[in-house]
Amino acid sequence: MAVALGELAVRFGCELRGDPQVQLERVATLAGAGPGELAFLANPRYRTQLAATRASAVVLDAAAAADCPTAMLVSSNPYATYARIAALLHPPAPLAAGVHPSAQVAAGAQIDPSAEVGPLTVIGPGVSIAARCYVGPHSLIEAGVVLAEDVRLVARVTLGARVRIGARTVMQPGVVIGGDGFGFAPERGTWLKVPQLGSVQVGADVEVGANTTIDRGAIEDTVIEDGVKLDNLIMIAHNVRIGAHTVIAGCVGVAGSTSIGRRCMIGGGAGFAGHIVVADDVVVTGYAMITHSIERAGVYSSGIPFEEARAWRRLVARFKRLPLLEGRVRALEQAAGLKEPEEQGGDDE
Amino acid sequence: MAVALGELAVRFGCELRGDPQVQLERVATLAGAGPGELAFLANPRYRTQLAATRASAVVLDAAAAADCPTAMLVSSNPYATYARIAALLHPPAPLAAGVHPSAQVAAGAQIDPSAEVGPLTVIGPGVSIAARCYVGPHSLIEAGVVLAEDVRLVARVTLGARVRIGARTVMQPGVVIGGDGFGFAPERGTWLKVPQLGSVQVGADVEVGANTTIDRGAIEDTVIEDGVKLDNLIMIAHNVRIGAHTVIAGCVGVAGSTSIGRRCMIGGGAGFAGHIVVADDVVVTGYAMITHSIERAGVYSSGIPFEEARAWRRLVARFKRLPLLEGRVRALEQAAGLKEPEEQGGDDE
Amino acid sequence: MAVALGELAVRFGCELRGDPQVQLERVATLAGAGPGELAFLANPRYRTQLAATRASAVVLDAAAAADCPTAMLVSSNPYATYARIAALLHPPAPLAAGVHPSAQVAAGAQIDPSAEVGPLTVIGPGVSIAARCYVGPHSLIEAGVVLAEDVRLVARVTLGARVRIGARTVMQPGVVIGGDGFGFAPERGTWLKVPQLGSVQVGADVEVGANTTIDRGAIEDTVIEDGVKLDNLIMIAHNVRIGAHTVIAGCVGVAGSTSIGRRCMIGGGAGFAGHIVVADDVVVTGYAMITHSIERAGVYSSGIPFEEARAWRRLVARFKRLPLLEGRVRALEQAAGLKEPEEQGGDDE
Repeated sequence: MAVALGELAVRFGCELRGDPQVQLERVATLAGAGPGELAFLANPRYRTQLAATRASAVVLDAAAAADCPTAMLVSSNPYATYARIAALLHPPAPLAAGVHPSAQVAAGAQIDPSAEVGPLTVIGPGVSIAARCYVGPHSLIEAGVVLAEDVRLVARVTLGARVRIGARTVMQPGVVIGGDGFGFAPERGTWLKVPQLGSVQVGADVEVGANTTIDRGAIEDTVIEDGVKLDNLIMIAHNVRIGAHTVIAGCVGVAGSTSIGRRCMIGGGAGFAGHIVVADDVVVTGYAMITHSIERAGVYSSGIPFEEARAWRRLVARFKRLPLLEGRVRALEQAAGLKEPEEQGGDDE
Repeated sequence: MAVALGELAVRFGCELRGDPQVQLERVATLAGAGPGELAFLANPRYRTQLAATRASAVVLDAAAAADCPTAMLVSSNPYATYARIAALLHPPAPLAAGVHPSAQVAAGAQIDPSAEVGPLTVIGPGVSIAARCYVGPHSLIEAGVVLAEDVRLVARVTLGARVRIGARTVMQPGVVIGGDGFGFAPERGTWLKVPQLGSVQVGADVEVGANTTIDRGAIEDTVIEDGVKLDNLIMIAHNVRIGAHTVIAGCVGVAGSTSIGRRCMIGGGAGFAGHIVVADDVVVTGYAMITHSIERAGVYSSGIPFEEARAWRRLVARFKRLPLLEGRVRALEQAAGLKEPEEQGGDDE
Repeated sequence: MAVALGELAVRFGCELRGDPQVQLERVATLAGAGPGELAFLANPRYRTQLAATRASAVVLDAAAAADCPTAMLVSSNPYATYARIAALLHPPAPLAAGVHPSAQVAAGAQIDPSAEVGPLTVIGPGVSIAARCYVGPHSLIEAGVVLAEDVRLVARVTLGARVRIGARTVMQPGVVIGGDGFGFAPERGTWLKVPQLGSVQVGADVEVGANTTIDRGAIEDTVIEDGVKLDNLIMIAHNVRIGAHTVIAGCVGVAGSTSIGRRCMIGGGAGFAGHIVVADDVVVTGYAMITHSIERAGVYSSGIPFEEARAWRRLVARFKRLPLLEGRVRALEQAAGLKEPEEQGGDDE
């Protein structure tokens, strides 16, 4: 399917510079694009590739326009404009409405006739699947689950009993929603399982990455609010709440009963202790260890960038004798008749 | 199903304070409970919610009893008592004994007639499934696997060839037991796969969280002893041994041939080097990097709590010039005629 | 199947010391071996077990031969020689060529008659499966995927549309190749999904561990070159490239558009920022946080080994007051009339 550049400009509200009759068939990278292809420039890192692009058109912002050798769409948000054009030029395959004959569907499940339920899926009793949902191959939807309109379970998604999923939410392969929370009561040297009786509520327009897991609540539900985006291999424990439009990169863990605010951005590999509260609009950088609540919006870190290993070992050795170094400074201060600053005189434990 | 408070007191050995005829139908949180509901107080963090609870009864310890506005069960271990009552009031669905017609069962597999084998499961040759096991949808049980009584594979669990699972063990969705260990021999700049010929032995009363993986041993078996509890997204490498009643939180990695003792508690995101031995009764806090063996019970750490990013960058900058700071202190000591402590005079590599 | 030691020596080019007629039936560990069993010694850690071994023969290098109490094969690379002998003595089950009747195969999929396609698999339209492939139970191969010869999908592997897998590559259970990359454009406080239109190219002789995920590229493909070995629970983001014969241990995350060189060795739990380039022959130790490009071969680190928790808390407290300590040293220098080294006089942000 080809679309004229002029039509894209009108449709997505961009300023057109160049021939409105240029036909665009698909998207490509600045470096890789050729005739009939549309590229975009959003990350300044790639600006050097602009002058040499052979794309038929480029989406970019006004500041970059002067360097563009070809037709262009000028947008105040070129990445979002690109995303919309890419979705137009590369639409997903249309749904094949109906239930595949190899699916195992319990009596009493309600499946909208416009939904597609793929091969070798299992749909439990009392499940409700709304219009235009896609339930990909090997997915399992346990009893009482509710899917709102246009939910897309790409493949092999497991939804435990009574999980609720909001409209347009997308789940990548291997996602597990509603596994048991990790609750055990210590008793005479062993651990007694605490029944996990809550479920999971996932809002609308959420995305959940491959092999990410979200556990069911112990008594009440674990909650993922609207617009949350979770990358792959993330662990959300029981009774966590993730606020609307928060985005979390891969390999993050959030321990039980923690609440993360709205519009937060969490870097890869970060970890959150249990039973803490993180405010709205918090940014956490990669690998940070969030051990207590964060009350104000801001940027928070704890990971330490790498060094060449020999230099790193020297740093670690110095780190490990910091108490000794502090003692040497104290001795010097005494010898010099300088007073040690009061705030660190006491015991630090 | 409703149960009288008096009956609960007798059955679980609690002291009853209040009307023994109060009927309990389900459990709830202190803050959310209403009539017919039983709450509990175990974590002091929630003590402030006790006075206002509308629960019909509360399980708590003697120290908290004075603040309780309603009927109560006084227990020396309120969390364990709550767990037992919750299991009584909210029993799991009874098994539907038998093999689902869509299951693919190899000739020669032994399945106890009281077991339930769910839809779209695959059971290999020589498998033995004991009484009252539950094999959830999409599970795969490869050749020669043995499940003891009352094992519960919630859904989509993969058990590789010859894996053995002890009684009452529970596996959440997405678990993989018996994938190949990561063994490769370097040879002329490439890596030659080393056959992974061992299997995995999992004890009784073990729990394995969603998408956790436990690799098969290279020659002998990887071993998870009785009562171990593993959270989600944990990686247990080949030939590891986890001692009985050890509990490991999410996102932990344990490298090959490492042995962790009994009754250990491992925080989320921690990591263990290979070929080390960790004693019994060790506590490892979240994100700690365990690089060598631990010979004595105790608490061990290495993660650094976060700071506001600007402050953190200042700390990292200072950390990176620690050798320089130490040199400045040495120069001051020389100028002051103070002797540098001997133990750090040498080269630290 | 038993093989004579003399035959092994000839076949694998080892020096034989001892009786060539000794029959070997299987492999075992040095400590656990008995008659008919072959052990190996490659890791010096296990050298103390050599003298007492009851193996019928041992594979080892010339330096260890003097301590060996039994017949032996002397090899310059005993681990690789062991791997080859183990594969000979313990061959995988032969393929049962053909498509299982419960498999769901789209019209137009090309499956070589020598391939085995297991139960409850799903094969999409336009898929091409070459000779001697094994597609294990519950695997899903979406439209247009190409498998070269001898690919082995152990079980429950998901390959998204248009993924290409090279010859002899092995994927453990739960692997997801070709889930959507994590791409969202910020727009007025929400996140707009950016279509992920690329796919994933995986080379020959690659191994991918259980529950590891490799996302499809945004526009162009994510690339895993020949001979790469990935352990379990690794996250490879969109448009990453991993160079040939690089080996990555478990729980590592690599963010989008990062390129890792050839023959690198990456320790468990390490993390890579996005849009960086790592040179060939780089070693990264466990838990290191790689925040920027690495231009030269070498060893790089950032994790800090653990301490007993009380000592650790003291270290962290000192770390957090490093700016204060530096100020105290500066005051001492001023009092002593020593000049502060210039390179750290300025603002460090």
